[in-house]
Amino acid sequence: MRKALYLLSLLALIHVAAAQQLQMASVGDLTLVSGEVIRDCRIGYRTFGHLNADKSNVVVFATWFRGTTKDLIDFFGPGKLVDTSKYYVIAVDALGDGVSSSPSNSPSQLHMTFPKIAIRDMVNSQHQLLTSVLHLQHIRAVMGISMGGMQSFQWMVAYPDFMDKVIPIVGSPRLAGYDINLWTAENDSIMRDPAWNKGDYTDNPEAEATAAIDALAIITPQKFNHDNDRQQTYAKLTKETHDPAAFDANNHIRQSQAMMSLDVSDTFSGSMERAAAAVKAKVLVVANDTDHMVTPGPALDFAKLLHAEVLELNNDCGHLLLDCEFQRVADRISAFMAQ
Amino acid sequence: MRKALYLLSLLALIHVAAAQQLQMASVGDLTLVSGEVIRDCRIGYRTFGHLNADKSNVVVFATWFRGTTKDLIDFFGPGKLVDTSKYYVIAVDALGDGVSSSPSNSPSQLHMTFPKIAIRDMVNSQHQLLTSVLHLQHIRAVMGISMGGMQSFQWMVAYPDFMDKVIPIVGSPRLAGYDINLWTAENDSIMRDPAWNKGDYTDNPEAEATAAIDALAIITPQKFNHDNDRQQTYAKLTKETHDPAAFDANNHIRQSQAMMSLDVSDTFSGSMERAAAAVKAKVLVVANDTDHMVTPGPALDFAKLLHAEVLELNNDCGHLLLDCEFQRVADRISAFMAQ
Repeated sequence: MRKALYLLSLLALIHVAAAQQLQMASVGDLTLVSGEVIRDCRIGYRTFGHLNADKSNVVVFATWFRGTTKDLIDFFGPGKLVDTSKYYVIAVDALGDGVSSSPSNSPSQLHMTFPKIAIRDMVNSQHQLLTSVLHLQHIRAVMGISMGGMQSFQWMVAYPDFMDKVIPIVGSPRLAGYDINLWTAENDSIMRDPAWNKGDYTDNPEAEATAAIDALAIITPQKFNHDNDRQQTYAKLTKETHDPAAFDANNHIRQSQAMMSLDVSDTFSGSMERAAAAVKAKVLVVANDTDHMVTPGPALDFAKLLHAEVLELNNDCGHLLLDCEFQRVADRISAFMAQ
Repeated sequence: MRKALYLLSLLALIHVAAAQQLQMASVGDLTLVSGEVIRDCRIGYRTFGHLNADKSNVVVFATWFRGTTKDLIDFFGPGKLVDTSKYYVIAVDALGDGVSSSPSNSPSQLHMTFPKIAIRDMVNSQHQLLTSVLHLQHIRAVMGISMGGMQSFQWMVAYPDFMDKVIPIVGSPRLAGYDINLWTAENDSIMRDPAWNKGDYTDNPEAEATAAIDALAIITPQKFNHDNDRQQTYAKLTKETHDPAAFDANNHIRQSQAMMSLDVSDTFSGSMERAAAAVKAKVLVVANDTDHMVTPGPALDFAKLLHAEVLELNNDCGHLLLDCEFQRVADRISAFMAQ
């Protein structure tokens, strides 16, 4: 009996481990909102937890800028951001992340021949994955952090009947000027390197060009200076700007262009009021007042129009608010999901 | 009689206008703290107000990063930062500002052959101007904004008997890690342009490379987004990054290196306590909690060691604190100077 139980739990472990593995789905040619086409579009995803019998416990989790579903693994489990004893998480790699179809990996649309994408294209590709490949017609919730939060805002507007709840965390329905300035600074810095899109660089031009700019916006100076004295800053700059494993420069350009072009009101004649009125899901907006990477104004303004729940933090971690108050956010999400 | 008065006031106006004109002084070969030499070093300056009989009303005002004494003209006058009915202001162009000896204008040490300079070299060059050229042995006060505040901190430590008062405004006695990260981001961005130090560029590579990075740190996102919507941000980025009249890239590098290397404790075995103990002047430190360009921590910490007066603001203008609370700062300076 003990042996049987042992084998059973071993099988369960193997099953969970296997489910967390990256899976790739083909959604065919994907027509973008621009009219251009991603040929033979492939979407990466990972699942966590178990789908219940009536398929009512699905949570879609979208990736952040530069991130992949691999980066999300630690967020799922009992006591984590999503409790996988209750929910079946489908984490989806956003277009342009280097796993799903991207400038860096497309056989026929390599580098800058890969078309410009929109956040809405990411969402459409995920909707196609969920409906055509995974045969889901309705899910419990969509959530995500940063660009994942942007996709969450776009999801609630583009497919209002598809989910019950949406939780954008440090996301935005339409970037403010400051945010556009940030991504422009990074893109300009990348493109000042004549080799940036040639693919023949030895160091990674993306990391070289953007690590120090990123550091200006991602956490508060208070936390930066607490974590890094002068010597540590120099060491950090040297290390980060020569990280060959970092993000592809072409992917950086296309994903950041997607963020900059995001405007959930674009199918509502530019009216945020009408966009909000189309939303049927219950929404919890999580934001940090000190966030200089995705400034919280647009999310908080849209939350008012949605009559959404809001968890507005004011901690020293800026955009990385979870580093300061993970449990507080996890608890609030858990309570919101249980409603 | 009326005609005589008219002529007298006309002459006075001409005198004031002439005094505000840029004057250039030669201080000979200037040996730097590095041991290198600026050959035939020239220092620009402008004066405002009138020197009194016992030469007891001199206020030296130092320039900010990228700035010149021309940018300071509006700060001097009745009701301004320094009341020129009481004080004789000598505004001095910092080394590397394109007016005083600089990478951009040195006949024999052009561009990057111009040696690295320190904030202490700027201060030493000014001390030489004041003593050898203008024959002053003691002044009432030193003050300055931003890099001018850094020079002010260095002045009080390097020449403790030379002045009665020092007022560093958004300055620093030793930059924090975050600040070093900022200037490194800008310098790296400049140097990613292969033409940056060739002098054969058509646009100004300094402005192109740094305007958007600067905008991340100089004011708060709240104020940025209040002043610039998305369209205005794009327009601003296009305009600023093609300003041919902006700062020379070589000067940018050398002045920012001076800021990064600043450490007022460097002649006190790295002890801020000992550096502070050497100061004899009364000090008023003006800082803004929201400043992300010269983060206020080091200035506020040093102020404690100095038992200095502190005007600590918390407004939305960040590094440009005077744009939000000019009168409050001017009034406090006026009261401090009158003590």
